[in-house]
Amino acid sequence: MINFLFHMPTRIIFGPGKLKELGTTTYLPGKKALLVISAGGSMVTHGYMQLVQTLLAQNDAESVVFDKIQANPVLEHVTEGAALAREERCDFIIGLGGGSSIDSAKAIALMANNPGNYWDYMPSGTGGRQVPPKPALPVVAIPTTAGTGTEADPWTVITREQTKEKIGWGNDSTYPALSIVDPRLTLTVPPRVTAMTGMDAFFHAVEAYLSHARQPTSDLLAQQSVSLITSFLPQVVQDGSRIEARTMLSWASTAAGVCESLSSCISHHSMEHALSAYHPEIPHGAGLVMISVPYFRYLTRYVPDRMVDLAYFMGVEMESIPAKDQPFAFVGALEKLIHDVGLSDLKLSDYGVHRDEMATLAANSMETMGGLYNLTPTQMNLRVVTEIFEEAYS
Amino acid sequence: MINFLFHMPTRIIFGPGKLKELGTTTYLPGKKALLVISAGGSMVTHGYMQLVQTLLAQNDAESVVFDKIQANPVLEHVTEGAALAREERCDFIIGLGGGSSIDSAKAIALMANNPGNYWDYMPSGTGGRQVPPKPALPVVAIPTTAGTGTEADPWTVITREQTKEKIGWGNDSTYPALSIVDPRLTLTVPPRVTAMTGMDAFFHAVEAYLSHARQPTSDLLAQQSVSLITSFLPQVVQDGSRIEARTMLSWASTAAGVCESLSSCISHHSMEHALSAYHPEIPHGAGLVMISVPYFRYLTRYVPDRMVDLAYFMGVEMESIPAKDQPFAFVGALEKLIHDVGLSDLKLSDYGVHRDEMATLAANSMETMGGLYNLTPTQMNLRVVTEIFEEAYS
Ligand SMILES: [Fe+2]
Ligand SMILES: [Fe+2]
Repeated sequence: MINFLFHMPTRIIFGPGKLKELGTTTYLPGKKALLVISAGGSMVTHGYMQLVQTLLAQNDAESVVFDKIQANPVLEHVTEGAALAREERCDFIIGLGGGSSIDSAKAIALMANNPGNYWDYMPSGTGGRQVPPKPALPVVAIPTTAGTGTEADPWTVITREQTKEKIGWGNDSTYPALSIVDPRLTLTVPPRVTAMTGMDAFFHAVEAYLSHARQPTSDLLAQQSVSLITSFLPQVVQDGSRIEARTMLSWASTAAGVCESLSSCISHHSMEHALSAYHPEIPHGAGLVMISVPYFRYLTRYVPDRMVDLAYFMGVEMESIPAKDQPFAFVGALEKLIHDVGLSDLKLSDYGVHRDEMATLAANSMETMGGLYNLTPTQMNLRVVTEIFEEAYS
Repeated sequence: MINFLFHMPTRIIFGPGKLKELGTTTYLPGKKALLVISAGGSMVTHGYMQLVQTLLAQNDAESVVFDKIQANPVLEHVTEGAALAREERCDFIIGLGGGSSIDSAKAIALMANNPGNYWDYMPSGTGGRQVPPKPALPVVAIPTTAGTGTEADPWTVITREQTKEKIGWGNDSTYPALSIVDPRLTLTVPPRVTAMTGMDAFFHAVEAYLSHARQPTSDLLAQQSVSLITSFLPQVVQDGSRIEARTMLSWASTAAGVCESLSSCISHHSMEHALSAYHPEIPHGAGLVMISVPYFRYLTRYVPDRMVDLAYFMGVEMESIPAKDQPFAFVGALEKLIHDVGLSDLKLSDYGVHRDEMATLAANSMETMGGLYNLTPTQMNLRVVTEIFEEAYS
């Protein structure tokens, strides 16, 4: 019997060239923005920061830039950004860039409007488990990659370095009020980052399709997202200038983000968070790819029908496969996709991960991101999680 | 190239037995509700009104009942309900029942918080085209039929009797804040009403699939809704006690409502509004059914591929049909569905419609609901619309 909660209140303006609507939209949720971007400089190099500031000015909104966000965003920059937002009396926060900038914008928006430290409100790990007394300031998300889906969900993933915790969290007030998804902004993303972020979106869809929290709409969007990414990601990694294919990937990523709101990720994401909490130089999408094959092979026996569906939506010709082998066709298609997007060379040891860390990583994933284990289609204990990490390592 | 606006902020709690969450939810948007129900008495007979009041009391909310809503709700009851809400200092409005009660709740919520007459804000026909200075009071929708989808869209359809105008309208503030869709409440709907309301939902999905405003998510939900209604509506008309099938129809109706938010209806609905503005004794679903076959036959040549899709999702075996005839398979399947749900006996003349009204109805539909003609996949003039009415009559 169907039972679910449907809620995804973000207004999403989607389409190539739509960024210009930032200059005219009546849905801007404030008059002075803190514009949160990465420390890497690409938003300036590509001119996106200046363009956003010009469009905001056209729309009678001021902006102040905060440009310290790292690839795996850290607590200290949330605190610093929130202090700047308060000092400058910003009334909304814009995240421009990849998931790290948009996630940081959400966390900064919360702390600009609430007392204490962001970690006081974390509901797991060493978090203080308090409830924020006030909602976050309104957030506007402008993604420049196709991957995280954070433009269509309330989640913000922040790392507390001193305790090696990377925790995803959010509430109703951290859904962006407005997201502008302009696939043209992704034309500048280099092939390897395109591949890694695209695989992140792929796993959001796959995990939402397997999660206990799934519902009809997330199933439909996940199926479409899996199909689109399987078709278009290898093409775009080959030739990143194809705007039609880039548009399909942007939609696949946003659709998978909606899936994260209506359904959820599962423990595959918990495991990756542990990995990049200990090794922040591992990009999130790369971490997921490196764990994925043993992880989904393990899950296959518990959700064989769903795995057949996923293989079907990846375009596998199921007729030629004996019925008993069909559920495992998904893992085969996943290995092929990883190869086709040029990521089959990824190795944990190349990122400095050591064989003796596996039990530590497994325990960390269950402590900091235990919630997703409850939504995973089978119960996993520390031994099983450790073994999956070990298999991913070998 | 994909271009769209995605926005459907309503929180929907869906599932058999979920009404009880009204007594515990933390998402109730106020402390004193105006509870809007129909004049027919069925909400009292079935005990739904009392149950809702008990659950509200459990959740520390008062309620005042307004029980005057007609099957085709009229402007005068919007004015009266809004006056009562103000007098009783209600801070939110609940619509409990079919589309007429929920639509009225939305219009009352707007006028409880705004000056003047509701028609001052109508953007077409004899409407005053003003912009409401304030948002509507928050609305909670509790549908007891599976059909209108109003629990998942901002639209409210109200008739101004003196000018025979039936106009659909809404803004961001008339999306319900909370909708509770409990399929168990539909178990008491008699077969003929089940058929008519189910066909309304079917047309929402079909029209959203053909509209210029369509987008990927509305396409997916429309496909699913069309499939579910084709499969389950004839079964439920035969045996209304089947909760699993009722649940599928409730989801199909809510999904089609989401389609009305993300995409839109087309001129088929404009034409039906004219019909029931002049003949308020025609149920909305019946009016749609009576116009539908000539209407969609006319449209087929302009959107042949979409019609093939729709036939496919209705379960038509396309392989046996010559390619050139495939687009018309949808109208054939529609005629069969109308027969299978027991509505092929519907005749305009039985409702007192006269042959010489056709040009008047056509003109009325284009004046009061002209906006939907702009979203219809071909331009239709007065002559064409009159001819479709004439064909529906004969
Ligand atoms: Fe992710
Ligand atoms: Fe309708």
